[in-house]
Amino acid sequence: MEKVSISKATLGRIPRYLNFLKELSVDNVPYISATTISKELNLGEVQVRKDLAAVSGAGKPRLGYETEFLIEQLEDCLGYKQLTNAVLVGAGKLGRALLQYDGFEHFGVKIKAAFDSNDKVINFDSRTEILPISQFDTFCKENNICLGIITVGEGSAQDVCNQMVQSGIKAIWNFAPCKLQVPNGILLQNENLALSLAHLRNQLSRGQGSIV
Amino acid sequence: MEKVSISKATLGRIPRYLNFLKELSVDNVPYISATTISKELNLGEVQVRKDLAAVSGAGKPRLGYETEFLIEQLEDCLGYKQLTNAVLVGAGKLGRALLQYDGFEHFGVKIKAAFDSNDKVINFDSRTEILPISQFDTFCKENNICLGIITVGEGSAQDVCNQMVQSGIKAIWNFAPCKLQVPNGILLQNENLALSLAHLRNQLSRGQGSIV
Repeated sequence: MEKVSISKATLGRIPRYLNFLKELSVDNVPYISATTISKELNLGEVQVRKDLAAVSGAGKPRLGYETEFLIEQLEDCLGYKQLTNAVLVGAGKLGRALLQYDGFEHFGVKIKAAFDSNDKVINFDSRTEILPISQFDTFCKENNICLGIITVGEGSAQDVCNQMVQSGIKAIWNFAPCKLQVPNGILLQNENLALSLAHLRNQLSRGQGSIV
Repeated sequence: MEKVSISKATLGRIPRYLNFLKELSVDNVPYISATTISKELNLGEVQVRKDLAAVSGAGKPRLGYETEFLIEQLEDCLGYKQLTNAVLVGAGKLGRALLQYDGFEHFGVKIKAAFDSNDKVINFDSRTEILPISQFDTFCKENNICLGIITVGEGSAQDVCNQMVQSGIKAIWNFAPCKLQVPNGILLQNENLALSLAHLRNQLSRGQGSIV
């Protein structure tokens, strides 16, 4: 199957598909159609078709998807087979808040360690180890880290980003409110919280009472 | 002008438009075209046209936009004229991280106070006051609060949401990883950080080396 991009919205629905499919007995329901799933979950059929097509290609005509295989592919999307190892740089308030966050492992990401240049936060009370930044490169290479989270300030974000790329990291989730330069082939996702809030405020001031 | 929805991407470019326009002397450049702006800022012309149309409608044929009026409307989009008053409920790590965040006022939102049911965090070291939740309703009504940020856990998020609606809040930014029910006319924006990370991980595992 050709690997197509899976949208955030689709990813967000995958746990619901999985919960439903896992409650079925695969022996009794060897195949399942998008129509059945959409009815059971009260979702639009077109949406379910698109979601499943992105995850598992087209189903078999008149049969639908092989239930067991579909479960496997949905789990694969959420990284159940193999957790992706991540590190976080910048163990200030936002960084530590993310370290406390429960939800990441349910979506296939394990934050193995955090790093900071401030001695005061090294091994700060946290369930994830906080290490000095001097150990960053060695740690990443030894632990096969491919995803990095940047929660430092604007001033040092590009330096941290460069260090991540040099240490073999392939995907960067950036919370610093600035544009980062990355080489081709490195994934960069910016999380601009101020912009999210601005968007909500703007809709409010324009009197748009719809749900986002 | 009909008020149309302004996308997050457009909002994110507005500060660049404003910086550029404010450097011009309005006396010398009474009108400016989308073409000029796009060239100066090295942005696609179609994109600039769409952005300006969303903010300020169509420009005048052969003249473009009246510079001074355009600046005013762009500032209006970012809430420069009137800061929107917000409150935050749940002053745990994530909540306190958001209170520390610098960027919100640049986008027109002022977090006036935070609330928590845990006595230990009341007036915790923070530049924003952290008050007991018992004062929530009175505070919101007295301070004309119309935007609420939820950073409590999944278990109490719906209760907090209901309390916000009862206190006259019209827009809710929810960080709790659960679906909230709101009455018609209330704006709800969910911020699912785990899902953002999952999206990045998923692209990584599918080998899509493009920039998000």
